[in-house]
Amino acid sequence: MIVPTDKTLQSSIQEKIDNLNKPKGSLGRLESLAMQVCLIQNSLTPKLKHPCHILFGGDHGIEKENVSASPREVTWQQMINYGKGGGGVNMFCRQHDFSLRVVDVGVDYDLEGYTHIIHRKIQRGTANFRFSPAMNASDYSKALSTGAEQVDECFSEGCNVISFGEMGIANTSPSSILMHLLLGIPLGDCVGAGSGLNAQGVQHKYEVLKESVDTFLRCNPSAPIDTILSYFAGFEMVAAIGAMLRAAELRMIVLVDGFIMTACMLAAAKMDKNVLDYAVFGHQGDEGGHKLMLQEMGAEPLLHLGMRLGEGTGAICAYPILQSAVNMINEMDNFAHAQITKYF
Amino acid sequence: MIVPTDKTLQSSIQEKIDNLNKPKGSLGRLESLAMQVCLIQNSLTPKLKHPCHILFGGDHGIEKENVSASPREVTWQQMINYGKGGGGVNMFCRQHDFSLRVVDVGVDYDLEGYTHIIHRKIQRGTANFRFSPAMNASDYSKALSTGAEQVDECFSEGCNVISFGEMGIANTSPSSILMHLLLGIPLGDCVGAGSGLNAQGVQHKYEVLKESVDTFLRCNPSAPIDTILSYFAGFEMVAAIGAMLRAAELRMIVLVDGFIMTACMLAAAKMDKNVLDYAVFGHQGDEGGHKLMLQEMGAEPLLHLGMRLGEGTGAICAYPILQSAVNMINEMDNFAHAQITKYF
Repeated sequence: MIVPTDKTLQSSIQEKIDNLNKPKGSLGRLESLAMQVCLIQNSLTPKLKHPCHILFGGDHGIEKENVSASPREVTWQQMINYGKGGGGVNMFCRQHDFSLRVVDVGVDYDLEGYTHIIHRKIQRGTANFRFSPAMNASDYSKALSTGAEQVDECFSEGCNVISFGEMGIANTSPSSILMHLLLGIPLGDCVGAGSGLNAQGVQHKYEVLKESVDTFLRCNPSAPIDTILSYFAGFEMVAAIGAMLRAAELRMIVLVDGFIMTACMLAAAKMDKNVLDYAVFGHQGDEGGHKLMLQEMGAEPLLHLGMRLGEGTGAICAYPILQSAVNMINEMDNFAHAQITKYF
Repeated sequence: MIVPTDKTLQSSIQEKIDNLNKPKGSLGRLESLAMQVCLIQNSLTPKLKHPCHILFGGDHGIEKENVSASPREVTWQQMINYGKGGGGVNMFCRQHDFSLRVVDVGVDYDLEGYTHIIHRKIQRGTANFRFSPAMNASDYSKALSTGAEQVDECFSEGCNVISFGEMGIANTSPSSILMHLLLGIPLGDCVGAGSGLNAQGVQHKYEVLKESVDTFLRCNPSAPIDTILSYFAGFEMVAAIGAMLRAAELRMIVLVDGFIMTACMLAAAKMDKNVLDYAVFGHQGDEGGHKLMLQEMGAEPLLHLGMRLGEGTGAICAYPILQSAVNMINEMDNFAHAQITKYF
């Protein structure tokens, strides 16, 4: 169960922020972020400890329908590549001192020999949701709990701020469908270019997804969230959802990445809306529907850098802003102690 | 003399970026930033060395006209406060490992006893430009060269990336005027709330500035940039302009802060447009005209966090993004070496 943050601390946090030696409100988004972090930690002196990044990998049956510019093999190739330290996610983790866990929950390749990968493969990819549910109920539960277990391990190492990423060619497709079904936004506004489709490719992707959703809705006119997720989502997405929910239960700060991880947070919020108290949205990406989805969720992402790499890179890239907010509230002097005439 | 960056390297930089193991263009703004840094350093393997921040302090005669929500004494109080490490700028410098130089070029207070301050006072504040020029030609030259000398010292310590900040109550007023006179934007669109004026205060500020500009233009219908600057700008602003020009001469990366420092970069660009090749705009602030000024300059700021503290905090806060861009081009593996099928 996720406990909502205790809003009674709000006024004393605001008072502390307003007495720091700067014009009131002049650190903008850092101030509202500091407020959120204080509420999450129920403290006026929050700390960031042992940041962790968990990257879940999985393949998608829908990839067979040519909905992605990149081929399926890129999933396993990148999973192997992360072990060499040359991926985008490696670089950001090094820069901001994140521990990185690369977890195979559903990659369509035998990765057993690779020691940098945590092996929790549930299936070699999902089924193609154009024709059948992506996964069965048992595998769905397994994916949720696998995500949660990984968070437990980070927590036991002292981590209180965590981010999630994904590697799964074609996973903007299920993400667009989640956005469509959970927010009621027309599917056309939810479908974008992914890793680089052209206009024709986007149109084809839209048609495949439209047909899949129509088929699903004929049999499941008012499906609960679990049914929607097991029908469309990837193992890496369900694991991330389980991970987000557990992280919020453990009162960790959850840094949310771009389009796919935002769709996962949206799904997590349908399961328990209190998860949003713990969510810090790192980056608004370029993928068509991301801005719209964030707006609908009332989210204020920290960065707008036009990134769309995935892997969780947009979340980790935003970490220094989070750190600045925490430094602000801990390290800036107040007017009285600094002997400065309080600004207006 | 500022040498423009050599654009012939552009195609080989772009080729390197496009072969990093990520969908083409998927690191968005980091990619264009990496391009700029490579051009500045004329290298495919750029490095950031010894980041320095120079904060110039000075008072403004126009403050006597009640154009600021904060009183004049805040300038000297904050200059002293930076020595205790509790200011906003201190916190950001610590976080991102910047050397901080606090330079008094025109504060209306005797700061001689404070050893953390570099003493280069030219006058105790400018004259009130409602009635007379802010400074004479000799003091104007002195301010320019003082700024340049500070940069020379940073350069001699091995610095190749530098940012500038200011402390000077009322300095949004001259900044608004520079924006108006140098870009031809109506004065009303250039004047904002500064550190926290209400609507009436903004109106009063506008009227004072309008009268001052009208008086100036009657005597100087087509004044050169030096005349405009010595009439309106503060010592801390002219020092920053001299510093920006010298930094670009030395091929340093210049991180540009919010409204006031952007106005200084605008003025610097009027003196030598090549300075813009070296300018990285850190943050788009909340002050009324800042967005408009950046647009007119074709600048793409890295952050949009609603900050308006000054001191250069918006520039330093953006440093990790710059670092990410540099890490990207140096640390990410390419497709061929990582054995990954090249994405589309």
